[in-house]
Amino acid sequence: MATHRFTPRHYHITLGPHEPVLEIADGDTVITTTVDASGHDAAREQVAPRGNPQTGPFFITGAEPGDMLKVRLDRLTPNRTFGYSDQMIAPNVVEPEFIPRLPWPEEGQTGRTEWYVDVAAGTATLTRPESKLGNLCLPLEPMLGCFGVAPPRTQAISTATSGQHGGNMDYRGFISGTTVYLPVFEPGALFFVGDGHALQGDGEIVGSGIEISFDVTFTVSLIKNKPSHWPRGENETSIFTVGNARPLDQAVQHATTEMLRWLEQDYRLDPVSANVLMSQCVRYDLGNIYDPAYTMVCKLPKALLP
Amino acid sequence: MATHRFTPRHYHITLGPHEPVLEIADGDTVITTTVDASGHDAAREQVAPRGNPQTGPFFITGAEPGDMLKVRLDRLTPNRTFGYSDQMIAPNVVEPEFIPRLPWPEEGQTGRTEWYVDVAAGTATLTRPESKLGNLCLPLEPMLGCFGVAPPRTQAISTATSGQHGGNMDYRGFISGTTVYLPVFEPGALFFVGDGHALQGDGEIVGSGIEISFDVTFTVSLIKNKPSHWPRGENETSIFTVGNARPLDQAVQHATTEMLRWLEQDYRLDPVSANVLMSQCVRYDLGNIYDPAYTMVCKLPKALLP
Amino acid sequence: MATHRFTPRHYHITLGPHEPVLEIADGDTVITTTVDASGHDAAREQVAPRGNPQTGPFFITGAEPGDMLKVRLDRLTPNRTFGYSDQMIAPNVVEPEFIPRLPWPEEGQTGRTEWYVDVAAGTATLTRPESKLGNLCLPLEPMLGCFGVAPPRTQAISTATSGQHGGNMDYRGFISGTTVYLPVFEPGALFFVGDGHALQGDGEIVGSGIEISFDVTFTVSLIKNKPSHWPRGENETSIFTVGNARPLDQAVQHATTEMLRWLEQDYRLDPVSANVLMSQCVRYDLGNIYDPAYTMVCKLPKALLP
Amino acid sequence: MATHRFTPRHYHITLGPHEPVLEIADGDTVITTTVDASGHDAAREQVAPRGNPQTGPFFITGAEPGDMLKVRLDRLTPNRTFGYSDQMIAPNVVEPEFIPRLPWPEEGQTGRTEWYVDVAAGTATLTRPESKLGNLCLPLEPMLGCFGVAPPRTQAISTATSGQHGGNMDYRGFISGTTVYLPVFEPGALFFVGDGHALQGDGEIVGSGIEISFDVTFTVSLIKNKPSHWPRGENETSIFTVGNARPLDQAVQHATTEMLRWLEQDYRLDPVSANVLMSQCVRYDLGNIYDPAYTMVCKLPKALLP
Repeated sequence: MATHRFTPRHYHITLGPHEPVLEIADGDTVITTTVDASGHDAAREQVAPRGNPQTGPFFITGAEPGDMLKVRLDRLTPNRTFGYSDQMIAPNVVEPEFIPRLPWPEEGQTGRTEWYVDVAAGTATLTRPESKLGNLCLPLEPMLGCFGVAPPRTQAISTATSGQHGGNMDYRGFISGTTVYLPVFEPGALFFVGDGHALQGDGEIVGSGIEISFDVTFTVSLIKNKPSHWPRGENETSIFTVGNARPLDQAVQHATTEMLRWLEQDYRLDPVSANVLMSQCVRYDLGNIYDPAYTMVCKLPKALLP
Repeated sequence: MATHRFTPRHYHITLGPHEPVLEIADGDTVITTTVDASGHDAAREQVAPRGNPQTGPFFITGAEPGDMLKVRLDRLTPNRTFGYSDQMIAPNVVEPEFIPRLPWPEEGQTGRTEWYVDVAAGTATLTRPESKLGNLCLPLEPMLGCFGVAPPRTQAISTATSGQHGGNMDYRGFISGTTVYLPVFEPGALFFVGDGHALQGDGEIVGSGIEISFDVTFTVSLIKNKPSHWPRGENETSIFTVGNARPLDQAVQHATTEMLRWLEQDYRLDPVSANVLMSQCVRYDLGNIYDPAYTMVCKLPKALLP
Repeated sequence: MATHRFTPRHYHITLGPHEPVLEIADGDTVITTTVDASGHDAAREQVAPRGNPQTGPFFITGAEPGDMLKVRLDRLTPNRTFGYSDQMIAPNVVEPEFIPRLPWPEEGQTGRTEWYVDVAAGTATLTRPESKLGNLCLPLEPMLGCFGVAPPRTQAISTATSGQHGGNMDYRGFISGTTVYLPVFEPGALFFVGDGHALQGDGEIVGSGIEISFDVTFTVSLIKNKPSHWPRGENETSIFTVGNARPLDQAVQHATTEMLRWLEQDYRLDPVSANVLMSQCVRYDLGNIYDPAYTMVCKLPKALLP
Repeated sequence: MATHRFTPRHYHITLGPHEPVLEIADGDTVITTTVDASGHDAAREQVAPRGNPQTGPFFITGAEPGDMLKVRLDRLTPNRTFGYSDQMIAPNVVEPEFIPRLPWPEEGQTGRTEWYVDVAAGTATLTRPESKLGNLCLPLEPMLGCFGVAPPRTQAISTATSGQHGGNMDYRGFISGTTVYLPVFEPGALFFVGDGHALQGDGEIVGSGIEISFDVTFTVSLIKNKPSHWPRGENETSIFTVGNARPLDQAVQHATTEMLRWLEQDYRLDPVSANVLMSQCVRYDLGNIYDPAYTMVCKLPKALLP
């Protein structure tokens, strides 16, 4: 049950079978940092390439394909005051005929929105551009946009997208205190973490949350011989499953099926009970509808579970 | 501001330019009843064909194409104790390979689940089949699955599906106290109402909520010369827009675009402000992912609106 | 086996249970005319509203729900020289980011393309606008964009879209000599016909073929007690099935499943034989990817059928 | 203009920045072999893992990101007589409700179909299982299911799927004599080739063509500083573009947009001309509707190009 303080020296823009940066044991805790989506650190220096660069991978001793990796996101805290987001809703999220009427940035403009993030006050305040929103002030909900393990078949998959291995799910439920469960595909699991958002709307519809660098603390445990298909999670009130695919319909199919498997295998519900329970009690959250794979989350209240 | 008590004698399984059952004025209230999705009334007698039969249509004096009809769902109350639902998640909601493993009803079986609905206690209790869920007891959230106006181009569209005119959206946010706004396509608007659910999970993933007959009270008002594209709504805390289409991605596009139009036209936000506000504050609800058209709802907290 | 000459006096913009214009018997032939998509006739006079107005419906004596209507498209001939088409690919057919770069018509412009149609020569020649294409000359392939029967559940469905009843499929395979098979949902079947195209590319990607009025000759026969789910067709070399839905994936599912049913029920193939035959021999055509429902066609060569 | 004879010693199940097996120059020809989808060679020995193992990668001297790689598929010939295919249409290709009625293989069965491939006669003959199809005999159309270059961002992407880099497109148009154009993302381009099919139906709807090992001859050329987005191709009669994505609608969007770019950039058509030409003349082919990314092909006849 060691606690490791790890300072990253380099970052990855794919999740894949890369050289581990640290080996940790079942039960260990890691305290580390992540840079923002564009590769800038706490001091706003660019130390990594753009595109959700990841800290890691962490090799979990004894993890083998067919195991399940449990990761508790103990603490996610922005470690600077500057956050930014994009300011135009992504074309794929509006009606095709409406796309030319979106506020496309002028030639040479970035279309960036800037925010002042005050961790002590628990707020993000809009500072640019000037608009009718004035200094819109929103409550922080720090979350991880992209994390996961090395994917199957020795693939190295871009941190722009997601899959069964996790990745860029951009789901605002991945906050401090959430536990996630990921299938293990490579020896050591190879866990990566990055892409902090000070907060984010459902769907990440402009293609970003409020992007910022993070201090991150997480704790891993290993569940041997427990194959699963898609990421799962748990917080104080709910269990949930995550489907990553296009179209959104397919993401729903993965999340729903994974929940059925979970109820039947771990909660020992017969199929009829699992179907009836989900039918009237299920909730769905939209993770992202921007990235190459969209994310839908299927939730059940813990209070209803046997 | 009259109050009408209306007892339906017949029902419709399409929303279309049918003979009105009652003409009402801007500001009037109607107290009426609806039968359940299979056409059974408060006494459990079959008085209408299966398939979300509708009470109405109500002709609103002075309503013309290009107007907007505002309907407050004042009071939605189950008017009997027997409710039922389906018990197998619909094949289109799970991974294709998993479909044969769903609990298909045996030949000659209906696969129905039955519930005892106690309005005074505010609960629905599972009574059939016997299963590991025992007498699962859930809080009531009575909602309307299907309502709307006559659609454009003199169409008569099945109450199994939905569109710009409303219809079978099966969204669990259509509860007592909610106000809905619908585009008017036919003289008199021709408002229909039916398909009560004692409660429902997100997505209506078994193809039904807890189906039951209702006492319904609603109040209409007319907003002249206010064209809109998709249903809108409002409750104490949020405004929302509704997109109905397949795949879910397209439903999201309609709902998101309608919210942008609403913010720009009624709340006088410039496009950048509307985009930025939505980017970090939007929430999406999944209405149904079962009917021929799926339903996604785009919401914004009223507290953030100018 | 009578031959009827029918001159339409009015037209429909929904397929539905409308008053028949003529009752015809099993085996009868009808010689009639259709107006173009915008309601203009052979003399270029507007005689019907815009939106694929239909000639009909024709009541087929003895047709009942559960029967199949067979219609041979004997002869489809443009009956004027003026044809027109749209000139911008529909936004939903290109990448969302590319949409602003499409050639949107200037304010007040229609973006219409005009063609000179010479039936004797068998050609359509581009006459407007002037462009690098000059007088592009294409071979005629006259086809019907929209035809069908009254849909199920007494619906009246817009001629802008399609479904199990046929409708606006915009498939360039519906040419002279093709036989189509449609499920019957209403007494008399109620057959409609309209929306002639002098020719059309796959997908109807600008939202139109070369739109023109037609002389149409067709012959009906009735197949009693033969339920089917989706339109089927046949020409000299192939049999085919038609799926109409969004997304295209679902249209493929309907067309493929209907072909399996056809092979198993009529050609008496066991499921393995039907699957293996289709696996290596099937061809798909894209009907339209523009209308509210997209169209995919699943084909098999007759030479391979038992 | 050298000709290289290359005998593979190992194979890859990802397309990625792997160690090149051979460096070749602009204009060079390679004569090599590929194993079948399950890793079996001409002698039916398993020499590679399952899943479309690839021969290569070949490093093309001087190729840099932003260039275009041109590859002529000179000669694709099955090099053994044994071919196999799957025998059940994939669940995602039929209506969800129909899936349980597909011919699922019995427990412990593989559901394989076997074919005798006679290159001299130009035929594939069904040899197993026994069925009503008897010894169905089909004409050979040898094609490559999977080939491509290393993808962007140093990813290594499974040979089960496809993208902008090519990959497992399973399009039956990739036959001898076809020329393909691929964007270059990595120094040397890193070209891979594998997954021969003796023939295949549209859509690869059972998840396989007639899988077989190949003798392959191809010739590369390099087009400097010519960025493109998606694979392109050319044969005697047509030019074509390839979109790989889910749903099929998005694959159509990529292919259509890439064709517009090609027409505007290389054939110097103004946007209106490009749109009008495509509108009435375009053809679409369905590559695969089985793999994680589906494939649609957009074609234009060369005879119509300026």
